[in-house]
Amino acid sequence: MGRAGHQTYVFERPVGIRTTGVVGGVKEAEGPLAEYFDRLHDDMRLGQKTWEQAERTLLKEAMDVAMRKAGLQKEDIPLYIGGDLMDQLTTSTFAAKSLGSMFLGVYSACGTTVQGLALAAMLMEAGMVDRVMTGAVSHTYAAEKLYRFPNEYGAQKPPYAQRTATGAGVALLEPGAGPGIEAATIGRVVDPGLKDPFDMGSAEAPAAASTIVAHLRDMDRTLEDYDLVVTGDLARVGLAFAKQLLAGQGWVQTERIEDCGVLLYREDQGVFAGGSGAGCSAVVMYGYVVNQMRQGRYRRVLLCGTGALHSPTSVKQGDSIPGICHAVSLVSTGFS
Amino acid sequence: MGRAGHQTYVFERPVGIRTTGVVGGVKEAEGPLAEYFDRLHDDMRLGQKTWEQAERTLLKEAMDVAMRKAGLQKEDIPLYIGGDLMDQLTTSTFAAKSLGSMFLGVYSACGTTVQGLALAAMLMEAGMVDRVMTGAVSHTYAAEKLYRFPNEYGAQKPPYAQRTATGAGVALLEPGAGPGIEAATIGRVVDPGLKDPFDMGSAEAPAAASTIVAHLRDMDRTLEDYDLVVTGDLARVGLAFAKQLLAGQGWVQTERIEDCGVLLYREDQGVFAGGSGAGCSAVVMYGYVVNQMRQGRYRRVLLCGTGALHSPTSVKQGDSIPGICHAVSLVSTGFS
Repeated sequence: MGRAGHQTYVFERPVGIRTTGVVGGVKEAEGPLAEYFDRLHDDMRLGQKTWEQAERTLLKEAMDVAMRKAGLQKEDIPLYIGGDLMDQLTTSTFAAKSLGSMFLGVYSACGTTVQGLALAAMLMEAGMVDRVMTGAVSHTYAAEKLYRFPNEYGAQKPPYAQRTATGAGVALLEPGAGPGIEAATIGRVVDPGLKDPFDMGSAEAPAAASTIVAHLRDMDRTLEDYDLVVTGDLARVGLAFAKQLLAGQGWVQTERIEDCGVLLYREDQGVFAGGSGAGCSAVVMYGYVVNQMRQGRYRRVLLCGTGALHSPTSVKQGDSIPGICHAVSLVSTGFS
Repeated sequence: MGRAGHQTYVFERPVGIRTTGVVGGVKEAEGPLAEYFDRLHDDMRLGQKTWEQAERTLLKEAMDVAMRKAGLQKEDIPLYIGGDLMDQLTTSTFAAKSLGSMFLGVYSACGTTVQGLALAAMLMEAGMVDRVMTGAVSHTYAAEKLYRFPNEYGAQKPPYAQRTATGAGVALLEPGAGPGIEAATIGRVVDPGLKDPFDMGSAEAPAAASTIVAHLRDMDRTLEDYDLVVTGDLARVGLAFAKQLLAGQGWVQTERIEDCGVLLYREDQGVFAGGSGAGCSAVVMYGYVVNQMRQGRYRRVLLCGTGALHSPTSVKQGDSIPGICHAVSLVSTGFS
């Protein structure tokens, strides 16, 4: 990293995920990954007055679960690195206030989970901090209201749209814990020039392909070196596009690439092309993927956090929708 | 840092600011710090169709200036770390796209400048990257439209309000350059419970005091160890409040604390209590302060980036306005 064209940093200090906290909503409870959540809510408001407060509650609960699993209290967590889809990152801010730790707000839209994980690992590698909590969150109704229309309007969506996940996922990182963080690849802004805010998967796919290729080239590897490459969140349309882009550049073993937005829901759940939202990759990566690594199903996984970096204002003003993707390679403890 | 209660990291690798790029608008050109800008615009639109595009142009120009001063091209800049006040950080995203580098979006409202600087220095300390550009930007009319009312409405403001600066400031960091980055203190979210979005200085002051005290305690220093402690941006109301809070805890040498929002404009410029906005601290810190350090006027300066972490939605929903402050200690080259 830092060398011309290089985007990947390989970690020397063994740092990894000690515990995770993963909380979801109604659709997530009905989906195929329900068993990997620590807590699932049947009340979309989580007892709160607003969707925004419900989103904060999701994140606070995920933090609480991750701490409880590790037998830690709030005062044991020195730093939280995270973000969300709300304007000015208010969800993460209020949860970090409740936690009482140092706070670094970060943003890569749906790719925020992996940006936070990469930065957390980098600060630990440098010895700046010995424990970090990092995560991301989204709530489908809070996101609909902000990015599209209040759900109550009943606006229709095209089949290539995605459903924002209702969920929060956090990871507690410590030295020597596992799965371990092997390498991180920081993405560039890649803009295919698309302007349809419903088609986020297509806007993000070129960034996903760019970062995956950068990672493989920097690491001198192929897709076969990973048991799973998981993007979050391209959904069905974007995943197919990303695979096409990779295959076009000669990276043909794309059958091991899966997407958090595809994994989180069944096709018959009325989620259009699949899930999205900062919370989608957070719950799938920190819930399902980390569990499967602990079970021994996957030994090396490339987490690819993909984000569409538009705002409602930029879309209304006719701007294109740029994408970004950051990647982190996770390896099971003991794997070399 | 990482130890219970510790928030400060002391850098071992000498990394510092090689060049800066500082661009401003009309009020900034009329203010007392005009001579410290690299470029000043008399067209608030900068030839663009929208305020948002004008804001992006400010940042791109600041990037160009910093590169030109260093004799570097876009392809020589591996990483940009930055943020802005626009929803979903679109200004920084589009400027980073134009730059073509890796991009990490960060957010602490008006304190974004210092969060970016701290993170950039940390990634360089860890040897992850050998050169980083970091910065922040704001445009007064883009911010008014988003946070308050379109300027054309002529809405009135209370005297304790602040005027968002129109400006962008970036710094290009390299090993061995100066002024050098000595230490960084990451802030906690501190919420005094205030709810008036015009009174951002008061909402941020407790966070400023908290981080300044954390820094001094972690470093075992007093305010007298700094030639200048500069907050950005509390403006007149918040600065007085922060000094009061510090004095109340026994930190009495508060006469050396100044504020970017106070420094950037004269009182008779119609800026209420002073300047604010992510671009305010960026232009004052990377323009005026770095220049004064190079001139030998200041040898050690504590940059304190203060932010009010609300959104228009959180304010309308009755939430309080939490503050945050991150601090970086800069020392002149050769100073030990």
